[in-house]
Amino acid sequence: MASAPTRLATSRETLFNFWFFTTARIEKFREHLIRLKDTVVRSDTTITGETTMRKGIPRVSGPADYSREMAEKRLAFVEKFTGVKTHHLRQYSFDPAMLPGNIEHFSGVAQIPIGFAGPLLMNGEYAKGEFFIPLATTEGTLVASYNRGMKVIYESGGVKTTIQDDVMQRAPVFHFEDARASRNFGIWIKEHFLEIKARAETTTRSGKLRDIEQYPVGKLMFLRFNYTTGDAAGQNMVGKATFVACEWIKSKYSDIRRYVLSGNIDTDKKPSRINILRTRGKRVTAEVTIPAALIQEIAGAPVDIIVQQRQVSTLGSFLAGSNNNGSHSANGITALFIATGQDVANVSESSAALVYVEKTLTGDYYFSITLPSLIVGTFGGGTGLATQKECLELLGCHGAGKVQKFTEIVAGTVLCGEISLASAVIAGDWVTSHDKYGRNR
Amino acid sequence: MASAPTRLATSRETLFNFWFFTTARIEKFREHLIRLKDTVVRSDTTITGETTMRKGIPRVSGPADYSREMAEKRLAFVEKFTGVKTHHLRQYSFDPAMLPGNIEHFSGVAQIPIGFAGPLLMNGEYAKGEFFIPLATTEGTLVASYNRGMKVIYESGGVKTTIQDDVMQRAPVFHFEDARASRNFGIWIKEHFLEIKARAETTTRSGKLRDIEQYPVGKLMFLRFNYTTGDAAGQNMVGKATFVACEWIKSKYSDIRRYVLSGNIDTDKKPSRINILRTRGKRVTAEVTIPAALIQEIAGAPVDIIVQQRQVSTLGSFLAGSNNNGSHSANGITALFIATGQDVANVSESSAALVYVEKTLTGDYYFSITLPSLIVGTFGGGTGLATQKECLELLGCHGAGKVQKFTEIVAGTVLCGEISLASAVIAGDWVTSHDKYGRNR
Amino acid sequence: MASAPTRLATSRETLFNFWFFTTARIEKFREHLIRLKDTVVRSDTTITGETTMRKGIPRVSGPADYSREMAEKRLAFVEKFTGVKTHHLRQYSFDPAMLPGNIEHFSGVAQIPIGFAGPLLMNGEYAKGEFFIPLATTEGTLVASYNRGMKVIYESGGVKTTIQDDVMQRAPVFHFEDARASRNFGIWIKEHFLEIKARAETTTRSGKLRDIEQYPVGKLMFLRFNYTTGDAAGQNMVGKATFVACEWIKSKYSDIRRYVLSGNIDTDKKPSRINILRTRGKRVTAEVTIPAALIQEIAGAPVDIIVQQRQVSTLGSFLAGSNNNGSHSANGITALFIATGQDVANVSESSAALVYVEKTLTGDYYFSITLPSLIVGTFGGGTGLATQKECLELLGCHGAGKVQKFTEIVAGTVLCGEISLASAVIAGDWVTSHDKYGRNR
Amino acid sequence: MASAPTRLATSRETLFNFWFFTTARIEKFREHLIRLKDTVVRSDTTITGETTMRKGIPRVSGPADYSREMAEKRLAFVEKFTGVKTHHLRQYSFDPAMLPGNIEHFSGVAQIPIGFAGPLLMNGEYAKGEFFIPLATTEGTLVASYNRGMKVIYESGGVKTTIQDDVMQRAPVFHFEDARASRNFGIWIKEHFLEIKARAETTTRSGKLRDIEQYPVGKLMFLRFNYTTGDAAGQNMVGKATFVACEWIKSKYSDIRRYVLSGNIDTDKKPSRINILRTRGKRVTAEVTIPAALIQEIAGAPVDIIVQQRQVSTLGSFLAGSNNNGSHSANGITALFIATGQDVANVSESSAALVYVEKTLTGDYYFSITLPSLIVGTFGGGTGLATQKECLELLGCHGAGKVQKFTEIVAGTVLCGEISLASAVIAGDWVTSHDKYGRNR
Repeated sequence: MASAPTRLATSRETLFNFWFFTTARIEKFREHLIRLKDTVVRSDTTITGETTMRKGIPRVSGPADYSREMAEKRLAFVEKFTGVKTHHLRQYSFDPAMLPGNIEHFSGVAQIPIGFAGPLLMNGEYAKGEFFIPLATTEGTLVASYNRGMKVIYESGGVKTTIQDDVMQRAPVFHFEDARASRNFGIWIKEHFLEIKARAETTTRSGKLRDIEQYPVGKLMFLRFNYTTGDAAGQNMVGKATFVACEWIKSKYSDIRRYVLSGNIDTDKKPSRINILRTRGKRVTAEVTIPAALIQEIAGAPVDIIVQQRQVSTLGSFLAGSNNNGSHSANGITALFIATGQDVANVSESSAALVYVEKTLTGDYYFSITLPSLIVGTFGGGTGLATQKECLELLGCHGAGKVQKFTEIVAGTVLCGEISLASAVIAGDWVTSHDKYGRNR
Repeated sequence: MASAPTRLATSRETLFNFWFFTTARIEKFREHLIRLKDTVVRSDTTITGETTMRKGIPRVSGPADYSREMAEKRLAFVEKFTGVKTHHLRQYSFDPAMLPGNIEHFSGVAQIPIGFAGPLLMNGEYAKGEFFIPLATTEGTLVASYNRGMKVIYESGGVKTTIQDDVMQRAPVFHFEDARASRNFGIWIKEHFLEIKARAETTTRSGKLRDIEQYPVGKLMFLRFNYTTGDAAGQNMVGKATFVACEWIKSKYSDIRRYVLSGNIDTDKKPSRINILRTRGKRVTAEVTIPAALIQEIAGAPVDIIVQQRQVSTLGSFLAGSNNNGSHSANGITALFIATGQDVANVSESSAALVYVEKTLTGDYYFSITLPSLIVGTFGGGTGLATQKECLELLGCHGAGKVQKFTEIVAGTVLCGEISLASAVIAGDWVTSHDKYGRNR
Repeated sequence: MASAPTRLATSRETLFNFWFFTTARIEKFREHLIRLKDTVVRSDTTITGETTMRKGIPRVSGPADYSREMAEKRLAFVEKFTGVKTHHLRQYSFDPAMLPGNIEHFSGVAQIPIGFAGPLLMNGEYAKGEFFIPLATTEGTLVASYNRGMKVIYESGGVKTTIQDDVMQRAPVFHFEDARASRNFGIWIKEHFLEIKARAETTTRSGKLRDIEQYPVGKLMFLRFNYTTGDAAGQNMVGKATFVACEWIKSKYSDIRRYVLSGNIDTDKKPSRINILRTRGKRVTAEVTIPAALIQEIAGAPVDIIVQQRQVSTLGSFLAGSNNNGSHSANGITALFIATGQDVANVSESSAALVYVEKTLTGDYYFSITLPSLIVGTFGGGTGLATQKECLELLGCHGAGKVQKFTEIVAGTVLCGEISLASAVIAGDWVTSHDKYGRNR
Repeated sequence: MASAPTRLATSRETLFNFWFFTTARIEKFREHLIRLKDTVVRSDTTITGETTMRKGIPRVSGPADYSREMAEKRLAFVEKFTGVKTHHLRQYSFDPAMLPGNIEHFSGVAQIPIGFAGPLLMNGEYAKGEFFIPLATTEGTLVASYNRGMKVIYESGGVKTTIQDDVMQRAPVFHFEDARASRNFGIWIKEHFLEIKARAETTTRSGKLRDIEQYPVGKLMFLRFNYTTGDAAGQNMVGKATFVACEWIKSKYSDIRRYVLSGNIDTDKKPSRINILRTRGKRVTAEVTIPAALIQEIAGAPVDIIVQQRQVSTLGSFLAGSNNNGSHSANGITALFIATGQDVANVSESSAALVYVEKTLTGDYYFSITLPSLIVGTFGGGTGLATQKECLELLGCHGAGKVQKFTEIVAGTVLCGEISLASAVIAGDWVTSHDKYGRNR
C-alpha cells in the first residue's frame, strides 16, 4: 500500500487557500469596502461615462438625505425620466428624518389600506382579552374572513396560545482540508463554546448565544449559531455577533481554509425543513375547541367530515411537498406584518405551519396550528415608524418586553383565518364569497 | 375464495355520502350563505349578549361603508376601546370609495416608505431599457443592496429575462368508493376535457383552461386545473371557473361521493415542490454574465471561488430542505409587491428560486436565477389603488397587456439583489454594511 | 442603452462547447470505450507496477468466465489474499452459465433465508385469490408480522388493488446559450415528438415513449422521457431508447451546447418528490376495510383512536420531511424483491408510500396505501435466475404478461405489513414481539 | 371577558384518555399479547372455518420448527397449493437451527450471486489497505462499474473515510391536554434526563442514551431518543430501551394522555430530511482527489466540465426534491447489505447522500460523498448467518469492535460507484456499457 500514489495538497494550493486571511488581503478588503460604500453613496455620479450621468438617483451625504426636499427631488427625477406624473406617492404624514436605518433613497410612501378585524379573544400567557387586529391588505375578503373566524373563536371561548421555543440563527460554513479536519474542528467548537459565546455577546446587549449546532458534510462544516434576541427579530444582531465570533475562531483555529458567514442553512428569508424542525424565530401554537353545533353551522358539515377533510388536506400538502398543511397562514401574517413594521419578506419562512385537529370525546372540534418559524419583533426594524408604531400600540405591543404578547396575537389571528377559510371551503362558500367581496376592477 | 367475507358499503353509508348533493342541502346551503354574509355585515351587533355589544366594529351596508367618515368612526371605536390615540393611520390621499373589492372595515392606511433603486438595465423580451424600481420596505440596506446590484448589472450590459411558463391553478379533490372508481373518473375527465373547459370558461373572459393534471391517491383523486389568466394574477378567477366546472362534473358523474374545491395541492399561499416543478404563476429566468474583473472587485475573490461558494450554498439549501438555493429573493419581491399592489402573501410561493451559475470559458461569471412560481398581475387585485397604480405606471406596467413586462422586471430586480448580497457575503461585507445602513433604534 | 456593454459568447467559448460533438471526439470516444472495457476485462493485470500484480481478480474473456471453475478460482484468490476460509459461499445449485447479464466476477452466492407468509387473499384486477408470499430476509419478526397482517386481511375479505399509472423514465439535461434558446428547444421538442418517439422506439420492442415532460431552469432544459415498458422494469431499456433519441435530437437541433443522459430528475435509485407526484414504475393502491371488532382486538384500541393516531403518524412524517407517511413498506418490498429477482436497490424509490384512512359510517376501519413509484418486472433483470424464477412461479408471476399481477401482489403484501405493525405499535406490542422473535446472536 | 364561554375537558373525556393506563387495560393487554402470539404460532389452524383449514402454513412450536424437515414440509405445502415444483429454493448449506431470531416459517433460500470488486484501497481510520468487496446482485454491470471505480480510486491513492456521527433513534410521541402541558412535559424531560437514561439503559449492555430531542407540535410532543448502539445496528435495542423509559416516564408524569412508541419521526425504514440533518446510524464521508489526467481519461471531458456537470446534477436533485445529489449509492449499499447480512430494507434511509466536489488548485478533481444515515452492524441481525458471516470475515469485519471499519468500507465502496457511473454518464458510456454487460434474456 505504501507504493500507492498519495495525494498531497501542494504548497501552491495551501498558499492559495490562506490567501483569504493574509494581512495584505485584510488591507485590500478594507479599501474595497470603503470604495464600495462610496459608490453606493455617490450612485448619482457617472457610472460608465457621460451618457449615463443623467440616470443617477439624486442623493446627498448624511442625514440631510432624509428630507421631504430630497424625496421630492428623487421623485421628480424618476418622473422626468419616465414621463409619468405621480400624486399619491408623496402624501405622507411623518418626518423623513426618522427613516435612516429603515430605507435608502427615500422618495415617498406606499399607502396600504388597513381594516380591523375583531374582537380577537385571546387566552394567551401574555396576550389576554380582546384585541382589534389591524390588517394591511389589498385583497378583498381577507379582513372579512379573519373577522368571521374571530367571531367563531369568540363564541368558542377564545384562542389559547403557547410559545414553545424562541431562537434566531446565523449559520456560517467553514472549509477544511478534509472531513477529518472538519470533524476535529467540530470537537474544538464544542470545547470552546463558552469563549465563543463571550465573543459573540460582546456585540449585543440583548442577544445571547444559546448553542451551536453542527452539520458536517464532506470537508465542510455547517454551523448553526442559535441565539435568543429579546424583543428584536434579531437577524442583523445575530449576523454581527456571529461574524465577530467567527473572526475570533479563525484567529484561534489555524486549520480553517476559508469561511463565509452564511452557508444557507440559516435559512434566512427562505422556508426550509430545518427551520420547521429546529425553529427560527418563535415556535408558537394556537389552539381552540369549537363546539360541534357551531362548527357544523359554519362549515355546513358534521365534525366527522370536517376532521376527515383535514386529513385529506394534510395528505395533499404531504403529496405536494409543501411546508404547510393548513390553508393560508400567509394571508394573516402578511397583513399584520405590513401593518406593524415587521420584515415582510420573512413571510416566506414565517408562514410555515403544522395543523393538528381532533374530534373530542364530547364530539367537538379541537383545532391547533403551530407556527415553527415565526419571525417577529416589537423593537427595532420598522416597528418605530409612524403608522407601524401606532398599530403596535393599538395592540399594546410596542417596544421592549412585548414580543411574546405580539407573537401570541399573530398566532391567534392565524388560527382564526384557518377556521374561517377551511370552513368556507368545506361549505362551498369560498368562490361565492370571493365573488361578493373580492371584486376588483 | 367465494366464502371469504366481502365488505360492501351499506346503504346507510351510501346515503350519507350523497347527503352533500341533495336538493335539500343546496337550499340549506343558500340560506346558510345568506346568514353568514349577514353576520359579517352586522358584526357590530350583539355577539353573545349585551356585554359585548360595545365591541362591534362600526359598519354600514353598501358603498357608504367606504368613506372617510366610516373609517374615522372605526378608528375612533378602536381608539376608544384601547385608549390609544392615533394620528398617522388616518393620513391618506385617496377616496375610500375606490376600495370595495380590496378591503373590508377600511379604517386607515399603513404608510410604507418607498425608495427607488436603479437604473435597472433590462434586456428582456418585454421590458427593455432602464427602469427605476420602487421598493417599499422598512429594512435598512435593502434598497442600497439592490441598487448596488443594479449598478453591477448595468456595467455588465443588463439582465436578460425569459418567461418559460405561465399557469395558475385551482386543485379540487374528489372522493370515491375506492381507487378503481377514482381511476375511472380520471379516464372520464380526460375524455370530457373539452366540455369541462367550456364550462369553466363561461365564468371568465381572460381565463383559459389549459389542461387538468391528475394525482390519484387511494380512493381520492386530486386534480390540478391549469389556466392562463391574462394580466391578472388570477387566483380568484380560477377558483370560480373551477367551481363551476366541478359543479358540472358532479352533475354528470354520479359516482362522486364528495368533492371540495381545494385538496391543498394548488398550493395557494404555500411554497411547495409541486409548484417549483409544475409552475404556478410565471416561470421566469433572469441571466447575466458579469466580467471577471468586475465581480472580483465586488466580491473580493476570484471567479473560481465565487462559483465554488455557490456550490456550497446550493448544498446548504439542499441539506436544509429549502425551496431556494439563492440568497434572498423574498426581499426584492416583497418590496416590489407592496409598492405595486400585488398580493403580498404570495411571497411565500413567489420567492422560490433555482440558481445556476458557471465560470464561462472567457473566465467571466454567468449567473442565472429562475423563479418557478412568481405570482403577479398588472390588472385587478390591488393594482388599481392610488400609490400602487402610480408605481406600476412609473414602470410602464399598469393595466392590460403589461404582465409579461412586469414579470421580467421583478425577475431582473431579484437577480440584482442576488448578485449584491452573495458578493457581499463572500467579501465579508455583509455585517459591516448592515451595521452602517441597517441601524434601527 | 446602446452604449451599454453587451456580453457575447466569444468564438473560443463557442468552439469549446461544440468540442463535445466533433468527429474527432467521437473517434476518441470510441477508442476510449474500447480501452475502458479492456481494462475492466483485464483487471487482473498490473495496475500500478509489480507490487499489485497479485491483486487482480482472476478473469477470462467471454462465456468461459461464467463457470464453477472460474468462480472457485476467484474465491480462492480472495481467500488467499485475506487468509479467510469460506465454505457456504460456494454452495449453489445452478449453472453459472446462466449469469451473463446479471453479474460480473461471479464467485459464489449469498444464501438468504426465505419464509412464506400467507395466505394473502387478493381481490385485484389481475391477482385474484390466495397467495403464499416468499419473503427473503434475515430480520426476525418480519415474516410473522406480515403473516399476522395477512390473517387480518383474510378475515376482512381480502385486499383490493388498483394500478393507476405505469411509466418509466430517463431524464437527460440539455445545455444552451441562454434561457431563450432553452425555451425554444422546448417548443421544438413538442413539435417533433412523433419523430423523437419513432427514433426512441427503434431500440426496443416493448418500450413505448408516452410523452416528454419539460422542466426548464435557467439555460438548462431538463426533460423527462416517459415510457411504458411492458413486463420489464425497464430502466436499461429506456436508457438506451433515450440515448438514441437524444443523439438524433442533437443531430437535428444545432443550438445544443451539450447534453448528458441524466440530469438527476429521473431520479433513478433515489427517492424524490417528482417520482411521488409523477409516478416512476407503477402507481398502485391497496385498500381494505377492516371490521371494527377485528381491528380493535388487534390494535387494542377503538377505531377512533386508531384513525386519530394515523393523523399523528402522518403529521410526524410531514414534520420529518419523509417520503412515506406509513410504517415500513420497505420491509415487505425488500423481502419480496430479494426473493423474486427484482433490482433491490430500487427499494429506495419503491418504498415511497401515501397512506389514507377513514372510519367508515358503519364504524369500520378503511385503510389504503398508495405506492407511487414501485419498480417491478417479471421479465429480464434477475427474474430468470434459479431461486428467483421459482419464487415468481409460486406466485404465478413469471415471464410475459404478469407484471400487473405481480404489482398487485407487492401492494397487497405491503398493506398487510402496515396493518400489522401499526396495530402492534398502538397496542404497545411492538417491543415485546421483537423481543420474542427478533433475538439474534 | 370573564363572561366568555370557556372550554373544559369533561370528566368523560378525561376518563377516556386515561383508559390507556388503567390496570384493567394492562391485564387485557397482557392477555391480548398472549392470544396474538398464539395465533401466529398456530396460524396453520382454522381461520374462518373448514374451507380454509388446508391453507395454513405448517408450523410446530419451539426450536423444532427450525429444521430441514419443517422447511421441506412448508415448501411441499406451498408447492401443493400452487401446483408449482421447486428445486433450487431447498438448496442451502447451513443448519436451519441457526435461524431463530432471523426469520419465521423458514422454507428455503434465495441464492443471490456474488461478485467481488476490488481491490478497494482504503485510507480510513479503521479500514486500511486493500479489500475485495462481495457484492450480491442480479443487475449486470453493477460489479463491473464498482470495480472500475475502485481501479480509478486505487490509482488516485485510495479513498479517505471519516465517521462524523453515530446515533440510533426511537421517537415516541406523547399526547397532552394542550400545548402548554406538552411544553411543560418537555421541561420535565430535560430535568429528568439522567433518570430516564438510567431506565433506558437497564435493557441493554451496549446501548447508551445520548440525548433526547424535542419537537413540539400543538398538544403533541414528539421526542427523539438518540442512542449509541455499539456494533449492532441497534433498531430493536433502542426500541426496547425507549419503551422501558417511556413506561417509567408514564408512571411518573401524570399529565400524559397517551403515548405511542413511534410518532414517525425516527424515521425507521423511511428516508427523511430529519435523518439527513440529524443523522441516523452512521454519518460518514468518503473522499478522494483524482489526478486531472486520470479523470479526464475516464470521463472523456476536462475537470471543469465534470465539476460543472455535478452542479447540474445537484440542481436536478434539488429541483426533483430528492434526498441524494449523487448518482446511485443505493446500488453498492444494497449489494453489500445483501452479502453481509444487513437489514436490506434500510437501503431506503441509508442511500441518502450529499456529494460535494471541487477542482483543486492543482487542477485535480476532489470528490466527496457523505452518507448521513447509513445503518450498519457487524453483530446481531443477519450478520451471523452462513454466507453473511463469511462475507464479513473476508472484509475482516465480523463481530464486536468492527462496525466502524465496516462503515468505512461501505462508504468507500459507494464512492467508487459514484466516480464510475458519473464518469460513464459524462462520457456517454452509460448506455453502451449496459448494452454489453447488462443484457438479460
